[in-house]
Amino acid sequence: MPEYREVRARAGSFLDLCYSPAMAAEVTLQPIRRYGFDAAILFSDILVVPDALGQKVEFREGEGPVLEPVREGKALAALRPERALDRLGPVFEAVNRIRGALDESTALIGFCGAPWTVATYMVGGRGSSDQAEARLWAYRDPQEFSRLISLLVDVSAAYLARQVNAGAQVLQIFDSWAGSLPDGEFERWCLKPVAAMIARLREIHPRIPVIAFPRGAGARYAGYAKATGADGVGCDTTLTPAWIRDNVQHDAAVQGNLDPLLLVAGGTAMERRIGEILAALSEGPFVFNLGHGIVPQTPPEHVARLVELVRQGR
Amino acid sequence: MPEYREVRARAGSFLDLCYSPAMAAEVTLQPIRRYGFDAAILFSDILVVPDALGQKVEFREGEGPVLEPVREGKALAALRPERALDRLGPVFEAVNRIRGALDESTALIGFCGAPWTVATYMVGGRGSSDQAEARLWAYRDPQEFSRLISLLVDVSAAYLARQVNAGAQVLQIFDSWAGSLPDGEFERWCLKPVAAMIARLREIHPRIPVIAFPRGAGARYAGYAKATGADGVGCDTTLTPAWIRDNVQHDAAVQGNLDPLLLVAGGTAMERRIGEILAALSEGPFVFNLGHGIVPQTPPEHVARLVELVRQGR
Repeated sequence: MPEYREVRARAGSFLDLCYSPAMAAEVTLQPIRRYGFDAAILFSDILVVPDALGQKVEFREGEGPVLEPVREGKALAALRPERALDRLGPVFEAVNRIRGALDESTALIGFCGAPWTVATYMVGGRGSSDQAEARLWAYRDPQEFSRLISLLVDVSAAYLARQVNAGAQVLQIFDSWAGSLPDGEFERWCLKPVAAMIARLREIHPRIPVIAFPRGAGARYAGYAKATGADGVGCDTTLTPAWIRDNVQHDAAVQGNLDPLLLVAGGTAMERRIGEILAALSEGPFVFNLGHGIVPQTPPEHVARLVELVRQGR
Repeated sequence: MPEYREVRARAGSFLDLCYSPAMAAEVTLQPIRRYGFDAAILFSDILVVPDALGQKVEFREGEGPVLEPVREGKALAALRPERALDRLGPVFEAVNRIRGALDESTALIGFCGAPWTVATYMVGGRGSSDQAEARLWAYRDPQEFSRLISLLVDVSAAYLARQVNAGAQVLQIFDSWAGSLPDGEFERWCLKPVAAMIARLREIHPRIPVIAFPRGAGARYAGYAKATGADGVGCDTTLTPAWIRDNVQHDAAVQGNLDPLLLVAGGTAMERRIGEILAALSEGPFVFNLGHGIVPQTPPEHVARLVELVRQGR
């Protein structure tokens, strides 16, 4: 959206934008003003957590995030979890401002990355298609790697709890790289840490709804909600709506799963698919959404058309 | 393996190595000499097909394949399927030499890329984590995109049939990017083209065994063998051995699915996992294999240990 590009251009670095309560609030509200969505999601990034832990994090134009990798005990010991929540203060301030600016009827969603997904960036130092560095560390020294995961469970659960204090009414946990792990590893590094985070949150905020998104989990989406305690499950584009209905929706609300590229393409292909998703899933608990993040080249008028079709229920 | 690096160093470009019958045969035989596997797989690359079609293909050191992208009708019309099999002559010559050099007890596997996966490189011009360019073309102009897929079905089926004439005894079709497609697209661009290729092959070689590998297909692995007519299904690392047994193995032989990074890590984690895979799958039709390609940093002695454990059946 042009209004986002305008704020982005004067924000300095991407992290400066995330840490500016006024600007983060403004760009969170922009799509609500333009499209009237039922919920707003905090504008931020999952890598504010490693940054707040003291790891060097940078977003380079056209290259994505670059981190000083954490790959052994010494780098792990240098992280400062006790300071992280203070450093994240501007995020809570943004949440507070957004909640104040939204209508009562518009929900505010807070979020963070799941421990495994955040760890893949912390260990790899950048995005990768196979998350090899984190997976190798986990295979070679599961004890040490589990210290990193535990640290992330603790700080991420506390971070989400504070977002609720500041005004978030729903939480989402993004496990974007869940799909890169074989089954035993999936259980250990994805399922259990997310379950631990949700259990921790429930002690503080017993009724806060939590949506978890284990992208790429494939057949392991079945049973995921029960195993983690999530109230909602974000479904990726590889799942068929009928399969989601039969295997996920009886345990949890489901969210998804339009291919973001279909929103770029638009036209009858997009409209037909929106109809198929609604037909399969709108009888049960359901949040219409994309099956992955929106891409920069999306024409804003295609989003408007999507909202119109979903509001009509077809 | 050092013996591979030695041949690679004197081969010129990577494609020169693929098109040199003597060198391609030599590097195919090297792992058989070292480890005594039950089967050899032709040394080649799925991108020899676009190269043979006349598309510009280059393998750059440290960067992977780079192609002159095919994104519209004109570039599509410039492809030369009628010349492709002639250009692939050196591959058939390599197959012939390898078959002549192998023991009768060692099977020779020929292969090619599935139409969808080859198309993602032809359209994108390089590897990517989301295959956006090919997916967008398929959404925006499915008629035109289907001409590319049909062309690839034809040339790939003919290419495999000629590999059988030259001495291949088993065929494998790699659909490495099957996982990036939502369900209707998966059926149209993955399932049906692979089914068409296998049907075409059966007309020429009625009894040739075909293994298809729809990496990332998740829950859609169930039913994949029946829908395509594949005799064997390559299983990726995200599937649990028990799920493979219950959902794939009753329709087809299964192949997989050790994480290649566990072969890098070695030790008890690798050994335990090998035991779990064997325990779940060796009662039915089964080929022990990795769940994705071997990575360069794999220590050769870990492969030797793997072979020893599989031979012992634990």
